[in-house]
Amino acid sequence: MADILGPEDSSRVPRFAGTPTFARLPRLDQVSHADIAVVGVPFDSGVSYRPGARFGPAHIRAASKLLRPFNPALGLAPFAHQQVADAGDIAVNPFDIDAAITEVQAGAGDLSSGGTRLLTLGGDHTIALPLLRAAASAHGPIGVLHFDAHLDTWDTYFGAPYTHGTPFRRASEEGLLDPERCLHVGIRGPLYAADDLVQDGALGFQIITADSLLTLPVSTLVERMRARLGSGPIYVSVDIDVLDPGFAPGTGTPEAGGLASRELLAFLRGLAGLRLVGADIVEVAPAYDHAEITGIAAARVAYELISVMAPQLMAPS
Amino acid sequence: MADILGPEDSSRVPRFAGTPTFARLPRLDQVSHADIAVVGVPFDSGVSYRPGARFGPAHIRAASKLLRPFNPALGLAPFAHQQVADAGDIAVNPFDIDAAITEVQAGAGDLSSGGTRLLTLGGDHTIALPLLRAAASAHGPIGVLHFDAHLDTWDTYFGAPYTHGTPFRRASEEGLLDPERCLHVGIRGPLYAADDLVQDGALGFQIITADSLLTLPVSTLVERMRARLGSGPIYVSVDIDVLDPGFAPGTGTPEAGGLASRELLAFLRGLAGLRLVGADIVEVAPAYDHAEITGIAAARVAYELISVMAPQLMAPS
Amino acid sequence: MADILGPEDSSRVPRFAGTPTFARLPRLDQVSHADIAVVGVPFDSGVSYRPGARFGPAHIRAASKLLRPFNPALGLAPFAHQQVADAGDIAVNPFDIDAAITEVQAGAGDLSSGGTRLLTLGGDHTIALPLLRAAASAHGPIGVLHFDAHLDTWDTYFGAPYTHGTPFRRASEEGLLDPERCLHVGIRGPLYAADDLVQDGALGFQIITADSLLTLPVSTLVERMRARLGSGPIYVSVDIDVLDPGFAPGTGTPEAGGLASRELLAFLRGLAGLRLVGADIVEVAPAYDHAEITGIAAARVAYELISVMAPQLMAPS
Amino acid sequence: MADILGPEDSSRVPRFAGTPTFARLPRLDQVSHADIAVVGVPFDSGVSYRPGARFGPAHIRAASKLLRPFNPALGLAPFAHQQVADAGDIAVNPFDIDAAITEVQAGAGDLSSGGTRLLTLGGDHTIALPLLRAAASAHGPIGVLHFDAHLDTWDTYFGAPYTHGTPFRRASEEGLLDPERCLHVGIRGPLYAADDLVQDGALGFQIITADSLLTLPVSTLVERMRARLGSGPIYVSVDIDVLDPGFAPGTGTPEAGGLASRELLAFLRGLAGLRLVGADIVEVAPAYDHAEITGIAAARVAYELISVMAPQLMAPS
Amino acid sequence: MADILGPEDSSRVPRFAGTPTFARLPRLDQVSHADIAVVGVPFDSGVSYRPGARFGPAHIRAASKLLRPFNPALGLAPFAHQQVADAGDIAVNPFDIDAAITEVQAGAGDLSSGGTRLLTLGGDHTIALPLLRAAASAHGPIGVLHFDAHLDTWDTYFGAPYTHGTPFRRASEEGLLDPERCLHVGIRGPLYAADDLVQDGALGFQIITADSLLTLPVSTLVERMRARLGSGPIYVSVDIDVLDPGFAPGTGTPEAGGLASRELLAFLRGLAGLRLVGADIVEVAPAYDHAEITGIAAARVAYELISVMAPQLMAPS
Amino acid sequence: MADILGPEDSSRVPRFAGTPTFARLPRLDQVSHADIAVVGVPFDSGVSYRPGARFGPAHIRAASKLLRPFNPALGLAPFAHQQVADAGDIAVNPFDIDAAITEVQAGAGDLSSGGTRLLTLGGDHTIALPLLRAAASAHGPIGVLHFDAHLDTWDTYFGAPYTHGTPFRRASEEGLLDPERCLHVGIRGPLYAADDLVQDGALGFQIITADSLLTLPVSTLVERMRARLGSGPIYVSVDIDVLDPGFAPGTGTPEAGGLASRELLAFLRGLAGLRLVGADIVEVAPAYDHAEITGIAAARVAYELISVMAPQLMAPS
Repeated sequence: MADILGPEDSSRVPRFAGTPTFARLPRLDQVSHADIAVVGVPFDSGVSYRPGARFGPAHIRAASKLLRPFNPALGLAPFAHQQVADAGDIAVNPFDIDAAITEVQAGAGDLSSGGTRLLTLGGDHTIALPLLRAAASAHGPIGVLHFDAHLDTWDTYFGAPYTHGTPFRRASEEGLLDPERCLHVGIRGPLYAADDLVQDGALGFQIITADSLLTLPVSTLVERMRARLGSGPIYVSVDIDVLDPGFAPGTGTPEAGGLASRELLAFLRGLAGLRLVGADIVEVAPAYDHAEITGIAAARVAYELISVMAPQLMAPS
Repeated sequence: MADILGPEDSSRVPRFAGTPTFARLPRLDQVSHADIAVVGVPFDSGVSYRPGARFGPAHIRAASKLLRPFNPALGLAPFAHQQVADAGDIAVNPFDIDAAITEVQAGAGDLSSGGTRLLTLGGDHTIALPLLRAAASAHGPIGVLHFDAHLDTWDTYFGAPYTHGTPFRRASEEGLLDPERCLHVGIRGPLYAADDLVQDGALGFQIITADSLLTLPVSTLVERMRARLGSGPIYVSVDIDVLDPGFAPGTGTPEAGGLASRELLAFLRGLAGLRLVGADIVEVAPAYDHAEITGIAAARVAYELISVMAPQLMAPS
Repeated sequence: MADILGPEDSSRVPRFAGTPTFARLPRLDQVSHADIAVVGVPFDSGVSYRPGARFGPAHIRAASKLLRPFNPALGLAPFAHQQVADAGDIAVNPFDIDAAITEVQAGAGDLSSGGTRLLTLGGDHTIALPLLRAAASAHGPIGVLHFDAHLDTWDTYFGAPYTHGTPFRRASEEGLLDPERCLHVGIRGPLYAADDLVQDGALGFQIITADSLLTLPVSTLVERMRARLGSGPIYVSVDIDVLDPGFAPGTGTPEAGGLASRELLAFLRGLAGLRLVGADIVEVAPAYDHAEITGIAAARVAYELISVMAPQLMAPS
Repeated sequence: MADILGPEDSSRVPRFAGTPTFARLPRLDQVSHADIAVVGVPFDSGVSYRPGARFGPAHIRAASKLLRPFNPALGLAPFAHQQVADAGDIAVNPFDIDAAITEVQAGAGDLSSGGTRLLTLGGDHTIALPLLRAAASAHGPIGVLHFDAHLDTWDTYFGAPYTHGTPFRRASEEGLLDPERCLHVGIRGPLYAADDLVQDGALGFQIITADSLLTLPVSTLVERMRARLGSGPIYVSVDIDVLDPGFAPGTGTPEAGGLASRELLAFLRGLAGLRLVGADIVEVAPAYDHAEITGIAAARVAYELISVMAPQLMAPS
Repeated sequence: MADILGPEDSSRVPRFAGTPTFARLPRLDQVSHADIAVVGVPFDSGVSYRPGARFGPAHIRAASKLLRPFNPALGLAPFAHQQVADAGDIAVNPFDIDAAITEVQAGAGDLSSGGTRLLTLGGDHTIALPLLRAAASAHGPIGVLHFDAHLDTWDTYFGAPYTHGTPFRRASEEGLLDPERCLHVGIRGPLYAADDLVQDGALGFQIITADSLLTLPVSTLVERMRARLGSGPIYVSVDIDVLDPGFAPGTGTPEAGGLASRELLAFLRGLAGLRLVGADIVEVAPAYDHAEITGIAAARVAYELISVMAPQLMAPS
Repeated sequence: MADILGPEDSSRVPRFAGTPTFARLPRLDQVSHADIAVVGVPFDSGVSYRPGARFGPAHIRAASKLLRPFNPALGLAPFAHQQVADAGDIAVNPFDIDAAITEVQAGAGDLSSGGTRLLTLGGDHTIALPLLRAAASAHGPIGVLHFDAHLDTWDTYFGAPYTHGTPFRRASEEGLLDPERCLHVGIRGPLYAADDLVQDGALGFQIITADSLLTLPVSTLVERMRARLGSGPIYVSVDIDVLDPGFAPGTGTPEAGGLASRELLAFLRGLAGLRLVGADIVEVAPAYDHAEITGIAAARVAYELISVMAPQLMAPS
């Protein structure tokens, strides 16, 4: 383990200086192998309301400079026993959604070819589909843990099948998901119709609503989450709008009544011991952020996800 | 019910385009009758600190574009079984409080003459008085459910009897209120004197403080709220500063320690089955908002109020 | 002329209240005929950097509330002798550039079928192409006066022929332009290559750079502009980034060293007596604006364009 | 002169610390006599569009901390040879325009009773009327130099005679002005009607438009200004919206096409040698400011006005 | 008690006008003796990330204008039975941390010489060390109640022993603390190493983490806090980043997952009956605040601290 | 020349993605030799008012993504005939000004050892001193062209000799400057005393004030600038506050009445043919910026400086 490269030393280089990578980690080209690659997908051409998540990867990286190496809540140093590196961005076509999806899928496939797991910084939620394709091609149908205000299992908008509101329907239709192990957390707000929920269930999802937290403690809901996810491979997709707009204003389709960041982080730490094969954090739209608070929350989400992917905590595959 | 006009179809017209009405609903002049009229009162000359709520109606309308037609928390489509329409603004004199109050009262009376209930977008809290006058003239003394950080039962400022700090005292004095069925929710922060509370009680109000939520779940407090309100006619007045400034920075007299938006929405849904005859959402000051988060919360407040006014839920009068 | 409907009376309805149309003008459905229709095209899927101009039409309308009826610099009342009306938005597909272009062209054709001239509020610069197609189909090849920091005569990005950087190349290739009467004003900043200018000239454009204003007064440059435009039909396209970012921060590809708003308005008034057949104001991205200053400048641009379209000033066709 | 108290020493107390007065000057109660009193009038109930200038005095004071003691452009130290002190605010009734005007007039009269000249920080432009009354009661009819985008000689809004759009009409009607020596500088933008200009002229005003600066250098316009003002007593009223919104976004009725701050300061220095008897700087609305740039410009306006009031430069009365 | 001077009367002087002191209280030079002095220390040269807390005192004072005289949650009027006054700022050297610490210590010693307790408005956390020195010199080793996201018991950065990350280690080393009565509340987020916690414990601190609030009510944690603090002298130090960035964006090292302001205020009120000898509220960085929400929370923190210092509640020394 | 590495190709990688270096240029470690190294110095402990320039280098790099490869105003491709590379940041001690100056000097010396010229992104103006030391050690006494609102030739603040207000005095005292070839451009605003100008002249500086542009065209002033600078080695130091706050709000000591960005860029292009040996752009404080406009102006300043350093334009040494 002696040759694992960790973050730049903040006692030598101030945090406001130096390496512009996620958490000041090494670039992928500076390490011989990465257990986890943090990769940006600056794409937002699939959004239906406020665009701007194309600037999300840069914003989350900038907001990640304060992350320190030891996670006391989990009792481990997430960058010490697994090599985490920043793979830069997958460059994608902003004018052609289909082309972009192909590019993301190819880029994710390349990066993960040697067993590297991906933690992707979006970008809008459209990108979850090619990321799930890449994950499922390696692991077979997977359980999805999806934090979001919205279901994202709608069908089409303006005839477009691939948008930020549809990735999980497409993934289910393509057989990428294990329909017994999919779960939304944080759902709230108006829907198009009552049937949305029926269809969503048929695609394989159960729901823990945001309002559940008004009556049940996080710990109880975490147990429910773990029971649903089981022991198989899991992909975690975090739409930052799962947080209330007060905690995460910098997003495209904000919805009142969401989670506090403290609650979201507790859900994520509740994944310890399960089998994560990939994750994303999407829909950070910096033009609507203030004082980087959305970026800071997103960076911390990424940090907790990397923590629960650590070999000490991860279930063997 | 086939002829009820609902919101513009977002699969045909993107939400960032098209109709500038509340929730993309029809204008009042486009329907033959409205069960509920959403009306703006852009008036803020009664404020004692930060002005700007005159731009509140336009801001809430802009932030309402994301509202979708089905309310899963209540299991109904609030625009499907009652005609809701946007009545535009009541134009009021910004230089003369007395004239403005007269204009609001007249405008509200006109709009509600055919049994239309009003959901008013303020404007500062001064406007609650003429709105209560209009409501009481139709229904007799009414119970008031008032969400706010502040009591708003003070007497005068600078000799002015009609300001945003005094509407409920004036209403009580004028006999508009049922003193057995008035309730403040969310009160917190410093007062002028201990006697403020004594006088407030004498005017007919009980209080559920914001701090109550530190020790009791919302569900318990909702039961207390319902017990207080009883089966008679109810007017709901929501000052957006009932939310913590973290959730609603865009307001005139922010007070730390407030409700989360999730809590406020739960209180509102707790009104299901009671007899609402009118409501307002006031004190949204857009110049202090960020990324529309205050507007989004206010728009959702309005949506929940319209939902609990739906014929499926409303008690018969 | 007695039946021309003008803006809502601000002595009766405060400017912060009431009609949400451009300049508080009547809606198109409220008038029997419009000489000029102000129409929004909320589309920004063609942008290469900061998106957000899809919210431009709503922002410019909101910022237009302060426009008053008499233009002293030109000595006329632009809404008094020609019917100007707000046609709302042309709803376009945000996920498919080709579809969107078709929809804009169709929408523009419909609106202008009765001789109505269009003043379009963008939206990104991609939309100039279908607008020029509609204009040229009525008037034949037209002169283009293009205010911008950038040439917008590039060829393709990522293989995409239709983006906000290419409308005038496509228009020239399609024969929509009169190559003797096209002019850019305000060009500045780095290009891709020296050949960009050669190609631009070959497409029919001359250039008045922003730096010209360091050595020549606006009046001299206006004369040069008028000489280039001649007496034929003219389409004016104003990218708000022609202004310096200090005057117009709310845009997608800001470039230092631009025009002051005073200078831009003088150029526009310099069009008096020429033959404008249509105009647009594009690339207003509200998420980057502050205190509506970009929107206010854009609204005033629209006002001056409407003024020089007035029958008193327009050359006969 | 040895006993004149100047600003707090910034080599001993950092500018971001210490005295919260204008330019870190002594409070009025700390000096035995003031030649010039800087006084705030936090009143904005006369505004027709964006309110918020009630916070103007505090904002301009905060932005004045960087002002240093020597004015190199005029070659003098404005606080060294005349006692300048901060008189705090005149507290006025926010709910009653008439009461407020009476209070301002009384307050201004008291402060100026011993020959102290006032430099007033507004507040909206309504306050110019009582300030002119106080000045005229001491000096007889006075010349007014008025920097503004707008004429402010309108008659009534909503029947209200005293608003921020009417002070100079009322002042003229009351005989407070010398009709041969009044001048607007910076006028631009749409008016209500052509007759506005006729009436304005009849009230005693000439105009230097903002557009004049497109063709003439400031020095020429300063000569024209001095010729108009002559040798009699002058009151200077600076509405910060005379600056372009790019330079002063923090104001209530911004108008594109305005002055650069460099130009405004040159006009003010052009007053050297004339006979200023009072001045105000109004319409700074901090909620719309960014990075204090409007406040910084306003503080500098105040500094230049104090400079040209210095005994070395002032004409004898 | 008749001669205690309270806040300026807001029924006579609007809150947006008048006295620029904390809570509109008298200046220290206006009273003969102060029981509590509110003093600013505008210093931020000890920060390791975002600077700007040098503007904290002015910002908190501006945000304190809405504080009213009666605290209903505690049932007392905190300014009525003890003289509270604003002592202005201690001017400190921004270029030399050692000099600044000496100046703060001397200034605090002077102000507290007559038994006056200090409520200090920072400034960064570096200043807690000299303030603790001053407090301990009067009271002997004291218990410290420290609200923060971070431990602030690190050793050195870049060789610097005195920074905002080290005050409590230095204080412990200097023997200023009672190691049986020190407590952190609100700790969360990544650390440098597991050993950080070991060292922190050895310096005398126990910890109530922010995550404790996910499982225990505030009331239980308050009991734990009171048990730890005991009956001896207590110094309370509140780093505003103990709040979640959603509630307090205006700070230098924000950390997701923090307290709601409602929770923090409950902890502070839980101090009633204990023996507070001094307090500070630090790390408010206004350049990152929005709509004053951080300042409003900080002002309320100060208000609750003054309330629990009131003679009715304070334990005898 | 074939092996010069230029910016990342924006037709392959969108500008909002990819390389986080200045202008998307290669990192220094990716090239064998650099003619020009762009290097950040994130240091702001020498500021007397608003801090925050420590985040300047990252902000300017982010704002530089729109820079394209061909400079039409000078007719050359600045990255094509000289190797320009991004050297990252020089890490400096934020708590000790003397240590930081030593580190900057050492870092600059190392980077420039092979004849590489430095373009430094600050950071506050303190850093100009060690940068001048490094430049003078290679070239002997040099002419300084200094763009700024302020002289920066003051002596000490709070006893500190090395701050952002003193670099050019120290440099002159140390014999680093050629006293016949130093020039300030853009000076304006109040000074401490008349003697400031006398001392400044004695140190070797002449002045072109900002107000000069009210009476003379830039071209005339450029000639004056070139005459002063002569044919010897020149160091250019650009404090972004030379621009008016309207163009560059994101800075620490803004001063009204400054240059337009168009004017500054014209001065810089006026350096063509002279002998630049190094340059810096300092005092960009992102927390006060809006929509990156200050960063965009600063990035363009850097671009023009690199352009006039190109071998086609540079005088032989």
